[in-house]
Amino acid sequence: MRLSHLFGRTLREDPAEAEVPSHRLLLRAAFIRRTAAGIYTTMPLGFRTMRKIERVVREEMDAAGSQELRMPIVLPAEPWRATGRYAAYGDLMFRLRDRHEREFILGPTQEEVVAELAQQELPSYRDLPINVYQVEWKYRDEFRPRYGLLRGREFLMKDAYSLDRDEDGMRASYQVMYDAYVKVFDRLGLDYVIVEADPGQIGGGVNHEFMALADVGEDLFVRCEHGDYLADTEAATPRAPEPVTGEELQPLTEVETPGAVTIELMTEQMGLPAEATMKSIMFDVEGRTVAVLVPGDREVNEEKLARLHFPDRVRPFEDADFAERGLAKGFVGPQGLGSDVTIFADPSIRGRANWATGANRPDVHVTGANLDRDFRVDRWEDLVQFREGDRCPLDGGELRIERSIVVGHIYQLGTNYSGPLDATFQDEDGTQQPYVMGSYGIGITRIMAAAAEQNHDEDGIVWPRGLAPFEVVVIMANADEPSVTREAERIYGELTDRGVETVLDDREERAGVKFADADLVGYPLQVVVGTRGLEAGTVDLKLRASGERRSAALADAVSAAAEFLDQAL
Amino acid sequence: MRLSHLFGRTLREDPAEAEVPSHRLLLRAAFIRRTAAGIYTTMPLGFRTMRKIERVVREEMDAAGSQELRMPIVLPAEPWRATGRYAAYGDLMFRLRDRHEREFILGPTQEEVVAELAQQELPSYRDLPINVYQVEWKYRDEFRPRYGLLRGREFLMKDAYSLDRDEDGMRASYQVMYDAYVKVFDRLGLDYVIVEADPGQIGGGVNHEFMALADVGEDLFVRCEHGDYLADTEAATPRAPEPVTGEELQPLTEVETPGAVTIELMTEQMGLPAEATMKSIMFDVEGRTVAVLVPGDREVNEEKLARLHFPDRVRPFEDADFAERGLAKGFVGPQGLGSDVTIFADPSIRGRANWATGANRPDVHVTGANLDRDFRVDRWEDLVQFREGDRCPLDGGELRIERSIVVGHIYQLGTNYSGPLDATFQDEDGTQQPYVMGSYGIGITRIMAAAAEQNHDEDGIVWPRGLAPFEVVVIMANADEPSVTREAERIYGELTDRGVETVLDDREERAGVKFADADLVGYPLQVVVGTRGLEAGTVDLKLRASGERRSAALADAVSAAAEFLDQAL
Repeated sequence: MRLSHLFGRTLREDPAEAEVPSHRLLLRAAFIRRTAAGIYTTMPLGFRTMRKIERVVREEMDAAGSQELRMPIVLPAEPWRATGRYAAYGDLMFRLRDRHEREFILGPTQEEVVAELAQQELPSYRDLPINVYQVEWKYRDEFRPRYGLLRGREFLMKDAYSLDRDEDGMRASYQVMYDAYVKVFDRLGLDYVIVEADPGQIGGGVNHEFMALADVGEDLFVRCEHGDYLADTEAATPRAPEPVTGEELQPLTEVETPGAVTIELMTEQMGLPAEATMKSIMFDVEGRTVAVLVPGDREVNEEKLARLHFPDRVRPFEDADFAERGLAKGFVGPQGLGSDVTIFADPSIRGRANWATGANRPDVHVTGANLDRDFRVDRWEDLVQFREGDRCPLDGGELRIERSIVVGHIYQLGTNYSGPLDATFQDEDGTQQPYVMGSYGIGITRIMAAAAEQNHDEDGIVWPRGLAPFEVVVIMANADEPSVTREAERIYGELTDRGVETVLDDREERAGVKFADADLVGYPLQVVVGTRGLEAGTVDLKLRASGERRSAALADAVSAAAEFLDQAL
Repeated sequence: MRLSHLFGRTLREDPAEAEVPSHRLLLRAAFIRRTAAGIYTTMPLGFRTMRKIERVVREEMDAAGSQELRMPIVLPAEPWRATGRYAAYGDLMFRLRDRHEREFILGPTQEEVVAELAQQELPSYRDLPINVYQVEWKYRDEFRPRYGLLRGREFLMKDAYSLDRDEDGMRASYQVMYDAYVKVFDRLGLDYVIVEADPGQIGGGVNHEFMALADVGEDLFVRCEHGDYLADTEAATPRAPEPVTGEELQPLTEVETPGAVTIELMTEQMGLPAEATMKSIMFDVEGRTVAVLVPGDREVNEEKLARLHFPDRVRPFEDADFAERGLAKGFVGPQGLGSDVTIFADPSIRGRANWATGANRPDVHVTGANLDRDFRVDRWEDLVQFREGDRCPLDGGELRIERSIVVGHIYQLGTNYSGPLDATFQDEDGTQQPYVMGSYGIGITRIMAAAAEQNHDEDGIVWPRGLAPFEVVVIMANADEPSVTREAERIYGELTDRGVETVLDDREERAGVKFADADLVGYPLQVVVGTRGLEAGTVDLKLRASGERRSAALADAVSAAAEFLDQAL
C-alpha cells in the first residue's frame, strides 16, 4: 500500500469530541470515522487491525471445536418476549417494524436464535454437546454513547454458544471456552485480569469477565493489594471483622431520639459513631417481609439480595409498607421482629456488641442491643456493598478499586433461555429436557480500542506487531529526490515480496509530517530513506515501541529491517 | 470436520415453503435456516461456501486496487433525504428511530456514506481517484420475500465505490471494475451474461448487470437467437420495420366511430388490424404536453420516456388534462397538434403509410394519415416496449426473453449523489467540484443460490470445487466395523494433512442415508470405505458431478482420491 493512495487522512488536531486516548488516536490516525453517535465507519487501516483481532479469535474458537456460522442481525421480537429480554433491555434495544407492522429488533446477542435453532437441529442427547459461534455486528442503543469504540451503539462481537445435556456438560464446555479466551487475550498481548462477575441482564449463574486494564475504563473491579483476590465491585465480599468476643454486654436501654429518622440524625443525637449503630433495612419479597441488618455506616448490596431471592422480586419498603405491617419507619430494630419477618444479616453484625438501633417505636432508639440475647438472625449473607479500604477476604490486604475495559464475558446460562423457549432434546430416558447453555462474548472493536489504550504514548499508538495494520512503513524523507524514491521503492518492494506487511510513505509531504504520522499510526518499524543517509550508503531504522534506532547499510537494508522487526513485540 | 459433530441436519423432505431448487436444496442440505421471512441463518456448511465466494471477490477487488473498509448498517436518515432516496425507496427501506427519536435506516447500499466520507478524506483533486469496498449485510424490506436467498430482506453484498475527478476518470474506474467483475464471475464458474441495463432507482447513466442464467430467475433479459445482441427488457430497442416506400398515399378521410375510445373498439368498428392504427399517447412534463406516437398494437416504454426528460417529471395524462388542453380523450391524432405539443414517435411509425388514427373530435377517427403530409414528428426515439418476437437491431434475428439472477450490477453515477450532498473536492483551478462516482455491487448470498441453481440435479447440489463447503467426504459405509472405522479415519486424517478440505461421515446411519446426504450436500468427491471393498483391499471413489466411479487400492487411496479430485471442476 502506498500512503498517497490510502483512503483516510491523519488529523493534526485532536478531535473535540474525543475524551479518551484510544478515541482520539483512532480518529487522528484514520482508523475510524464517526457516522452517527456511537456508530463508526472502520477505515482501511482500522479494518486491517480489526481483521487481525478477528483472525486470532477465529483460530482459537476453531481450535476449541466451535463451529462458525452467521445469524441474522434483524430478528423477530417474539422469542425475546418469551425470555423476558424484550422488556428487560428497555430502551437499550433498537426496535423496528417491517412494512407489515411485524416487530423486529437488532440483535444485542443471540441466545434466543441459538436456542430455537438447536430445537430444529439437535433433537437428541446424542447430538450434544455442540458449540457454535459467529463474528457479527451487535446493537445497543446506549443512552450516551461515548469514548469511540468503547461504548458504541454498533459494535463487532464474537459470540459463541454451547449446548449441553446437563450442568456437568455445561461446566466442561464453559471451561473449554475459558481456556480458549485465555489463549486469545494472551495472543493479543493485552494486560488483563479475569474476574468472576455479577450475572447482570443475561441472568444465570457463574460468569467471568475478561477485563483489560485501562485508566479510562468504565468497568470497575476490586483487587487486593497483594494481588491474591479479584472481584467485580458488585460481587466483592470484603472480609468481615472478626466476631467480637469477651465484650461486656450492656443492658438494652431505650433512648428518646425525637425525629431521628436517619443514621445521621440518630448518631448526632446519641453521640455515637455510625459504625456503632445497626440499620435494619426492610424489603418486600412478593408480599413477605425481609429485614437486612448492616452497620450504620454501610450500604446493603441490593443486587445480591435480589439474586438470593431470584426469581422472586425484591423491592425496598415504601411508606405504605411500614404502615401496613405495623413498623415505625426510621426506628426499626431487629428485637421483637416476628417470625413473619426473615432477618438477614451481614457477618459484620457479629463484629461488635452493644449495637444502637431502633426501638420499633417512633422517636425512640435503643443501645445495648446484642445478638442472640436481644435479636435473632435467620440467615447470614455477605450483604454490605464493597467500599474502598475494605479488606481482602483471603489475606486481609487492602482492596483497591481498579478500572478496566471488559473485552470478554462468559456465562453459564443453564436453562434460562431454553426453558422459556421450550427448546428441548430427547434424553436417553425418552424425556424432553431443555438444553443447558453457555454463552461467550468477545468485543472485537472494543479490543481495538483497549489495545490502543494500553499501547500508546504522547505521539500516537504503539501497536503490538500482531495488531498493527502494517508492520513496516518505508518513509521517503525527500520524495523529490530520485535516488530516495528509487531506493525506497526497492526496499518497499523487497519487504513486500518477503511477506512483510509494508506501506510506502510516498506522499508529497515534509519529512517531519511523515515521521509524525508514522508515530501516530504506530507501525512497529520505520525505515527512513533520505538523501543524507544515502550519501553515507545507509538507511535509518526505528522501532516505534522502544524508540531504538539503527543505521543499516543500503545493500543490507531489507534483511536488517526484517531482523530488527523481529525484536518488536 | 466429523459429520457426527456438524451443526445442521439434512432434511429428508422438501420444505413446503421452498418453491425453487436452490431454496429447497440449501435448506435440505442445511446450508441455511429461516429465521424470519427473507431472513436466514447461514449454517456452518453455508458459511464455508459463503466465505469462499467472499474470498474470490476480495482477491479480485484488492487486485483491482480497491481498498476494503466497513461502513455501518444503521445509518442516519438525513443524507438519504438529501439525495431523495429516503422517499424513492418507500416501503422497501427498513426504518427505525433511536431512543432519542432520531431517524435511522438500515442501509440498502452506501453511496451517501461514501460521498460524505470522501468530503472529509479527499479534499483535493490530487487525492483522486479512489476506490473503496466493503462486504457487508444489506437490507431491503421486500413486500414478498421469496426463493430463499434469491429475494431476501437481509443479504450479503460486496459494494464498491469509485470517486473520480471527472467523467473520463469515472469511465476508466468503471472499466477496471467491469474487468474485475468478469474475473470474479469467471472464477466462480457461473454461466452468465453482461447486459447494459436500465438505471432504475439509483439513477444515473451507463450501467451493466451481470446476470447468471437460471430458469427460475426473476430478472429477464433479451437475447438475439444468434447471440449477437443482449439487452435488459427495459432497455431493449427492437429493430424497427424498414421505412415504407412507394406506397400509394390515400386521402385523409374522417370516419364516424361512436364511442370507440380504445384500440379494440376502434379496430372493430373500422375493420382494421391494430398494427394499421396509430396511437397518440399523451403525457404531461412539468406542465408541457408531450405526445408519443406508436402503432396501435404496441405499448409505450414509459421508463425510457421518463429518462429522456430526467430530471423533469413525466406523468400520463389524466381526464382533466385532456379537457384543459382541448383534446378529445380516445380520439387524439397527431394531425393539427400545435407547436405547444412536442410530438415524439417510435421509428416504427415510419414503417407504414395510411395510418388510421384519431380525428381530434369525439367519436371520429381518420384513415389515410401520412407522415409529413398530415402530421409532423418533432423527435424520433425508440419508444415501443419490447415484446417477444421482436427483431434484433443488429441482424434482424429473433429476440428471445431469457431468465436470470442478477449477481452483479455496476453503475456510472456521475454526480447524482455528490451533487445533492454537496460533496466536493478542490480542483486544480481552485474551484470546488463534486466527485464523479461509480458504484459496484456483487450479491454474495445470491451467488450462493445462483450457483446452486446452475449446479444441481435431482439428488442435490453439484458444487464446483471452488465453492463446495468441503472438497471430499469420506464415508464409513459400515460404521460399526472396526476395520472400516480405522481405514476411514486414516484416509480422512491423511487427506486433511494434505490440505484437502475433507469431512468424515462417521454418523450412526445406514450407508444409504450417507450416500444420499453426500449427493445432497454436493461434495465434489466421495470416498466410500466399506467391508466389501476392504475385503478386496480397495475403496470406492465417486465424482459427484460426472458420477464417474473408480476403485482404488487401499494403500493408494489418498493419492488416488487427490488425483481424481483434480478432475472435478
